[in-house]
Amino acid sequence: MKLLNMDPRIGELAKRLAEADQAHLLQFWPELSPTEQNSLILDMEGMDFQEINGFFKSAMETTSCSKQEKMDTRMEPVPRDVLGSVTKDRDCLKAWERLGLECIAQNKVAVLLLAGGQGTRLGVSYPKGMYDVGLPSHKTLFQIQAERILKLQQLAEKEQKPKCCIPWYIMTSGRTMEATKDFFSRHDNFGLDKKNIVFFQQGMLPAMDYNGKIILESKGKLSMAPDGNGGLYRALGNQGIMDDLERRGIEFIHVYCVDNILVKVADPVFVGFCVEKEADCGAKVVEKTNPTEAVGVVCKVDGCYQVVEYSEITLATAQKRSPDGRLMFNAGNVANHFFSFSFLRDVVHKYEPQLQHHVAQKKIPYVDAKGQLISPDKPNGIKMEKFVFDIFQFSKKFVVYEVLREDEFSPLKNADRQDGKDTPTTARHALTSLHHRWVLNAGGHFIDENGRRVPAIPSLKDGTDLPIKCEISPLVSYGGEGLEELVGGRDFRPTLIIDEDGVHELVKNGI
Amino acid sequence: MKLLNMDPRIGELAKRLAEADQAHLLQFWPELSPTEQNSLILDMEGMDFQEINGFFKSAMETTSCSKQEKMDTRMEPVPRDVLGSVTKDRDCLKAWERLGLECIAQNKVAVLLLAGGQGTRLGVSYPKGMYDVGLPSHKTLFQIQAERILKLQQLAEKEQKPKCCIPWYIMTSGRTMEATKDFFSRHDNFGLDKKNIVFFQQGMLPAMDYNGKIILESKGKLSMAPDGNGGLYRALGNQGIMDDLERRGIEFIHVYCVDNILVKVADPVFVGFCVEKEADCGAKVVEKTNPTEAVGVVCKVDGCYQVVEYSEITLATAQKRSPDGRLMFNAGNVANHFFSFSFLRDVVHKYEPQLQHHVAQKKIPYVDAKGQLISPDKPNGIKMEKFVFDIFQFSKKFVVYEVLREDEFSPLKNADRQDGKDTPTTARHALTSLHHRWVLNAGGHFIDENGRRVPAIPSLKDGTDLPIKCEISPLVSYGGEGLEELVGGRDFRPTLIIDEDGVHELVKNGI
Repeated sequence: MKLLNMDPRIGELAKRLAEADQAHLLQFWPELSPTEQNSLILDMEGMDFQEINGFFKSAMETTSCSKQEKMDTRMEPVPRDVLGSVTKDRDCLKAWERLGLECIAQNKVAVLLLAGGQGTRLGVSYPKGMYDVGLPSHKTLFQIQAERILKLQQLAEKEQKPKCCIPWYIMTSGRTMEATKDFFSRHDNFGLDKKNIVFFQQGMLPAMDYNGKIILESKGKLSMAPDGNGGLYRALGNQGIMDDLERRGIEFIHVYCVDNILVKVADPVFVGFCVEKEADCGAKVVEKTNPTEAVGVVCKVDGCYQVVEYSEITLATAQKRSPDGRLMFNAGNVANHFFSFSFLRDVVHKYEPQLQHHVAQKKIPYVDAKGQLISPDKPNGIKMEKFVFDIFQFSKKFVVYEVLREDEFSPLKNADRQDGKDTPTTARHALTSLHHRWVLNAGGHFIDENGRRVPAIPSLKDGTDLPIKCEISPLVSYGGEGLEELVGGRDFRPTLIIDEDGVHELVKNGI
Repeated sequence: MKLLNMDPRIGELAKRLAEADQAHLLQFWPELSPTEQNSLILDMEGMDFQEINGFFKSAMETTSCSKQEKMDTRMEPVPRDVLGSVTKDRDCLKAWERLGLECIAQNKVAVLLLAGGQGTRLGVSYPKGMYDVGLPSHKTLFQIQAERILKLQQLAEKEQKPKCCIPWYIMTSGRTMEATKDFFSRHDNFGLDKKNIVFFQQGMLPAMDYNGKIILESKGKLSMAPDGNGGLYRALGNQGIMDDLERRGIEFIHVYCVDNILVKVADPVFVGFCVEKEADCGAKVVEKTNPTEAVGVVCKVDGCYQVVEYSEITLATAQKRSPDGRLMFNAGNVANHFFSFSFLRDVVHKYEPQLQHHVAQKKIPYVDAKGQLISPDKPNGIKMEKFVFDIFQFSKKFVVYEVLREDEFSPLKNADRQDGKDTPTTARHALTSLHHRWVLNAGGHFIDENGRRVPAIPSLKDGTDLPIKCEISPLVSYGGEGLEELVGGRDFRPTLIIDEDGVHELVKNGI
């Protein structure tokens, strides 16, 4: 192989590739420029191809057998005694909240944001957290979350005396790190202290075809993708995050996904519930009410907790009901979890290697043997991912906390389009509708252009009826609290904006 | 008034109008052609203007006071002992169904279709029942319902021996009668016996401005609108329908709205439940799960059952929850009711005049004093309507039957558009998704283009994932029954069609 003599590093690499049956990755080597060659070598030097082949093998094995029927017989619902519920345990909520705020005031709580995904389905080339869903304030998801942290710190300080902080760990991927850091820096960290925001990076894995061959996305470049939000655990270990958490004395961690515009970052009620139950691991869920809703459900399988994905369940199981008429498997996962520090430490140091990769079949652009770039129109290969909830199985004291979808869960996944779910429009409406309810619950009212009070429940019957436009800055209210004196007994014309500068009505042609 | 001498009838009319303070209706009389004059006289001759003024007065009085707060303190939820539930009373369903089929077999059951509305919001100028939502078969709502009746007759005959029939009473309005009758006749009544389909017509009322003046939609024409689906009761009496029901020996009537593509016409389980409970009146409901969903709820007010509209409820009441965590007022009305004949007779002959009109504020095109046609851009007047559920208050034995929304309720209200609710697309998806589940529950499977089994729950995550296309003719299955031998153990590629001619797969480019 004379061509390989050009670079001293290539001999060893070619040998490793041949041993791992991935030699095709060098098939276009002679055609590459020296820069491209160097970059390809750099990409591959740190990779353990035998390990990757192992991932592929075990991932494919786990997926291939007819999982559905098997899973059905092994699933059990979440028992009532590990479940806390915002609707069924209303008498406990205040106490849980106080306990949560106490933990925050004592600097024991950190939040961990999963922001490694790219906005592919959303149709943008930048990180999702930078997306502006079109609120009156035009705040991005990152800004909304940052301001919720700020406000929560204040609430905790008010309750207890000393200054406190909630450190924010933000996991990006190789592709989103620079843009994310730059965005935060340009926005002065949205008022948060820079030293309490820690960015780190999840790993990447190559995409593979169904025969286990790594896919080239161009002649000199492997097709790489983030290793799933479960890549978190490896990254926490190898990037010093566990040490940072320990150094700060963090005892409880709230993990969540960037795309949920309603997320209650470091939710003190959820944290308080988990702490009171002495849980090492907890999952926030919303009730699944339609058997065929595409949401994973938290349940027990062979005695261990896990999230069973909708694609793994037969219809018969999805339709099963408890005697009270509710779906038996109704604990819908919203990627919103609680970990104790010691549990997370054990996961990172002991259990992580036991986690299996999941297979996601994808349409992956590739160069064919002739060097032509092909964009397939059906799935031609897989990406391998770990999931953040894969570690539930290791929990010794697992709890589930059920909240209301309309109050806490509206993910941004897709671009706007007809009949679209989880779009910028649905996210925006979910937030303004929540804030509308906050105003009503605090004793305020809305009136129409003729000065008549608008019914509490808008009809939305035809296209001209839009939800009431109302946005309340997280800097004013974290979860609806503290609004009575601002809005009680008052009539407002939408658009209503409440922020640090006060209460404003934006008349339509006034902007 | 020299101009009035032109027609001998006009003197009396002008006097009546003046007495009722509606003399403005003749303000353009001199400008009208003789034909227009004649037509205006014909329109007005049968009208009782004093009565109409009375309707206006009492309707406005009922509506004007701040209803919300008052209503709140008077509402009570439906008690468990009058509630039947498809999810909570699963052990009873078979028995109720048998009882319902028995009643049908004995020719005791009729269905009554409310089809007087026009497809204004849907954007069509013909009756909604004639709408084709784009199913593979392109069946209209009328055809789907007709075929369900046909199939149900067969099922009842199979169970019991003799031939039976379910007479179908169809209420249209002045504007939809001709088109509806013509459509049925052109389609040979979709296989039903013509003598068992009875059309009748609901009344019309004039639209009025906020001062109680009847609105002219042109110089020689009053603005008229159907008097609401509660116009049913007056129409049943004055068009001989009660006599027809009695002559046929009908004991139980199922009333429903034309726009629900999933409607179980004459649903034997619902009928059987009501008959077993010896109810004189029953309402089918679906669970309301989101406090701000725009649906009326069945509840008790001052000890009487009624539907409280979403616009009459404060948020505080809408948010109330029972100890089990469900919304306290969660019996969502789906315009799907049961009446005993004797109850209906009492309503028509005794109670109907006690019913109040409701006020619907509308943008009503009108001619101004100069004779100019104006299309207002905000509400300028009202239409007066009675509602079909207004008679619940007269029931002596009222029951409520809760069913699953995804199985039974998907109304067609609006044209397709972004983020649209209750559109042709949502109706089509609701039906094909239900039929998809029928196939899975009968032991069939679906496979993709590569021959791999498709998960039971489709992901629908991005725009390219559409629901499985599957349509089963009502002539083959009324409610999912009888499919095991057709699909059990078989793999299908969508589009799957099952009709009287058998089981067909439509390959994409095969049509």
